[in-house]
Amino acid sequence: MHLSKRLAAEMFGTFWLVLGGCGSAVLAANFAGPVHGLGIGFVGVSLAFGLTVMTMAFAIGHISGCHLNPAVSVGLVVAGRFPVRDLVPYIVAQVIGAVIGAAVLACIASGKPGFDLVASGFATNGYGEHSPGGYSLMAAFLCEVVMTAFFLFVILGATDKRAPAGFAPIAIGLCLTLIHLISIPVTNTSVNPARSIGPALFVGGEAISQLWLFVIAPIVGAVIAGVVYPTIAGRREAADRVAAGSPA
Amino acid sequence: MHLSKRLAAEMFGTFWLVLGGCGSAVLAANFAGPVHGLGIGFVGVSLAFGLTVMTMAFAIGHISGCHLNPAVSVGLVVAGRFPVRDLVPYIVAQVIGAVIGAAVLACIASGKPGFDLVASGFATNGYGEHSPGGYSLMAAFLCEVVMTAFFLFVILGATDKRAPAGFAPIAIGLCLTLIHLISIPVTNTSVNPARSIGPALFVGGEAISQLWLFVIAPIVGAVIAGVVYPTIAGRREAADRVAAGSPA
Amino acid sequence: MHLSKRLAAEMFGTFWLVLGGCGSAVLAANFAGPVHGLGIGFVGVSLAFGLTVMTMAFAIGHISGCHLNPAVSVGLVVAGRFPVRDLVPYIVAQVIGAVIGAAVLACIASGKPGFDLVASGFATNGYGEHSPGGYSLMAAFLCEVVMTAFFLFVILGATDKRAPAGFAPIAIGLCLTLIHLISIPVTNTSVNPARSIGPALFVGGEAISQLWLFVIAPIVGAVIAGVVYPTIAGRREAADRVAAGSPA
Amino acid sequence: MHLSKRLAAEMFGTFWLVLGGCGSAVLAANFAGPVHGLGIGFVGVSLAFGLTVMTMAFAIGHISGCHLNPAVSVGLVVAGRFPVRDLVPYIVAQVIGAVIGAAVLACIASGKPGFDLVASGFATNGYGEHSPGGYSLMAAFLCEVVMTAFFLFVILGATDKRAPAGFAPIAIGLCLTLIHLISIPVTNTSVNPARSIGPALFVGGEAISQLWLFVIAPIVGAVIAGVVYPTIAGRREAADRVAAGSPA
Repeated sequence: MHLSKRLAAEMFGTFWLVLGGCGSAVLAANFAGPVHGLGIGFVGVSLAFGLTVMTMAFAIGHISGCHLNPAVSVGLVVAGRFPVRDLVPYIVAQVIGAVIGAAVLACIASGKPGFDLVASGFATNGYGEHSPGGYSLMAAFLCEVVMTAFFLFVILGATDKRAPAGFAPIAIGLCLTLIHLISIPVTNTSVNPARSIGPALFVGGEAISQLWLFVIAPIVGAVIAGVVYPTIAGRREAADRVAAGSPA
Repeated sequence: MHLSKRLAAEMFGTFWLVLGGCGSAVLAANFAGPVHGLGIGFVGVSLAFGLTVMTMAFAIGHISGCHLNPAVSVGLVVAGRFPVRDLVPYIVAQVIGAVIGAAVLACIASGKPGFDLVASGFATNGYGEHSPGGYSLMAAFLCEVVMTAFFLFVILGATDKRAPAGFAPIAIGLCLTLIHLISIPVTNTSVNPARSIGPALFVGGEAISQLWLFVIAPIVGAVIAGVVYPTIAGRREAADRVAAGSPA
Repeated sequence: MHLSKRLAAEMFGTFWLVLGGCGSAVLAANFAGPVHGLGIGFVGVSLAFGLTVMTMAFAIGHISGCHLNPAVSVGLVVAGRFPVRDLVPYIVAQVIGAVIGAAVLACIASGKPGFDLVASGFATNGYGEHSPGGYSLMAAFLCEVVMTAFFLFVILGATDKRAPAGFAPIAIGLCLTLIHLISIPVTNTSVNPARSIGPALFVGGEAISQLWLFVIAPIVGAVIAGVVYPTIAGRREAADRVAAGSPA
Repeated sequence: MHLSKRLAAEMFGTFWLVLGGCGSAVLAANFAGPVHGLGIGFVGVSLAFGLTVMTMAFAIGHISGCHLNPAVSVGLVVAGRFPVRDLVPYIVAQVIGAVIGAAVLACIASGKPGFDLVASGFATNGYGEHSPGGYSLMAAFLCEVVMTAFFLFVILGATDKRAPAGFAPIAIGLCLTLIHLISIPVTNTSVNPARSIGPALFVGGEAISQLWLFVIAPIVGAVIAGVVYPTIAGRREAADRVAAGSPA
């Protein structure tokens, strides 16, 4: 399929990931109720992030492979599953989609009287004082590396041609849900540089000065998985499917 | 299959969507408990709405395509996946099903001593003062347009003949769950004119005077997706499956 | 397959439904925590009931059809999908499994100092004063009829030979989750006479004197669906698969 | 595939099970929030444990069968689905993976100022005073035996060659979620000796002196299922697939 269509798909998909994942956190996580809290909490946010990827993998997996994440694209290149010549265009499309997603979320969220975007945190990622649970830079870095490595490991395994066909969007989407269930308290969970960049541009300050970690750590994790999975699985036996979410 | 059977399926399915989705909100969202709240909150309501569509897509996808939603039917017509001659009958069946679903819910809910249907809100949609989080008309309109556009985008993608066969009910049902996880605080989430009309008729007043938004915004979103998806996916390559949830 | 093996499968499966579904309610729904409640609430109980059926449908669907519920067996007979000569043996096996499941749950639950089985309610079903939300007999009856009718409707649709093969356990299990998300406050949710009988025998008193509703209403609902689904779907086109959960 | 690659897969997979399952409990279960608790509670932890197995079953099912659990390997040997000569190497790889997973979790968790690993419990299993709900040794033993027996029963059934192909990771992963929804209050849920050993080594004391139960009870349960399932299902008709999660 023509590259421009694949890039459009990546842009729409990453838009959805940021609007849906960060949107659920900003709009719905903390909602109070008459008797007890009605908000979706970290369970709901975890589910939302995973479902953005699952739904898009079913919707555009056959168009672009549904990476929606620069670290995923890099990991697939390292594993020999994605052509390096498409890497930069994919990453540009993903970041553009993420920024537009954050912009639309800012419009919706601002429709609530008294909403203060910067004070809300706007679902940005952070470490140290900006970690939800106050986790240190080292813990945050380690966590993002390991989580992204296993994310890519699952992506590479679930799209291996020996894995059951058609199920990759479920495996990959729910893997992202799992990663959020574990690590929201540590870094607010990135494993995706585009997802981190989008909201940070609207918050500025420390959200931007801490961005480096959420670019570097996920890519380090992705490279590790891109090397390890084919070593364990056997490069020759592994799939030549283009990418995550593509049908058999 | 004969139109009357397809319309019966749409009516039963939309009945289930309103009884199950709105019912979970009215009956179970706020339930108190001895130690802490036992109610299902917005996570449970989100799950319930999505599961009404998922279960029906497996149950009647092969009969009617399982639209259950006038905006879905419109979007499928725009994308060239559904014959325009069936549009009005489908919408009529959906609205009838939604109204009966709301009526049965009213019967069950009224079995609780002290239940006040109007004061409860009865799961109606709203903006401004009637938005759960007090979101403005503009935010509500934008939110409903974008959410419905992505809902249709996922429906069109997941039923594309290049997507994995059989999984569309999962993708579409959980997309509706995701949309609720994001947007219940904004509008109580419609993305479906029939779902909005059903409960509003029983509440009256502002619930009816605000209905226009929940008819227009979802249809605008659906039309956008009906144009955009085939443009990205390639109209020729796209599926000729009749509709969401239909087996390969 | 020999009837004795199918009956053993039904017994084990219904044991699992009662131990898992009622067990999650009795053991985990109300658990307190240091900061806020850690208990699984109605969302967790709903998920648990659904997953008992989903897991068993994958595990024994190919052995017995995985009914686990007298109302399901009756509905399948009415729809012409299950031989009437096997009905009574199936129901006997289901009730035995449910009673043993409740017995094992009583053993485990009693291992907590101070546990009072009768005072806990032991996950029995009820109406009026014994409804979790105080819902009337009429509301409870209506709710159980409608919920069971749609449960059977989804079972018959998802096992129709035109529905996507292999997905029936997901559709049916998550339909039971959905039904619990809606109706736990009304009746504690039965839609299954065996599930109601098991715990009631250990609680006695009103739990037993109210059992009639949870036998009659689910069966009425199942009969309705057993007549309606084939009418809508076309009896001739409908599946001749033996039962829910059976592979293609 | 060469044994060393299968062992590497088992090690990575069990690492993920412990890091993800125990990690979600240690890092995220109790998280407070401004309005109400944001933590994932027992529902989130149950989901996390199940998703570690589901994601890995899709990722490495085709490499090692994805046991990740000595009790699973034992049960599969008893049922005649796994060669006894590979049993000890598999168990060693699983325990090594679990210990490294617990070590990485300790590194991340210690990044939070004031974190006290021993006082936190570190997601260890226990009975009596160390049971989350104070359940007795007998209740804990019975619970672990029954839960593991049904876990293996579902594994054996879902990987039976007559079960729908490709769905085993969903059935097995969500069965582990279900088991946690029921039994976290009783023992913190093991059903897996490797998962119990990993964190216990870091906590020491009673966590280690109670380990025997979480080795013996799961294995007893697994042996029971390894005998019972083939008896019900018919040994001859049952699958000769090597193990859980392997594609058709």
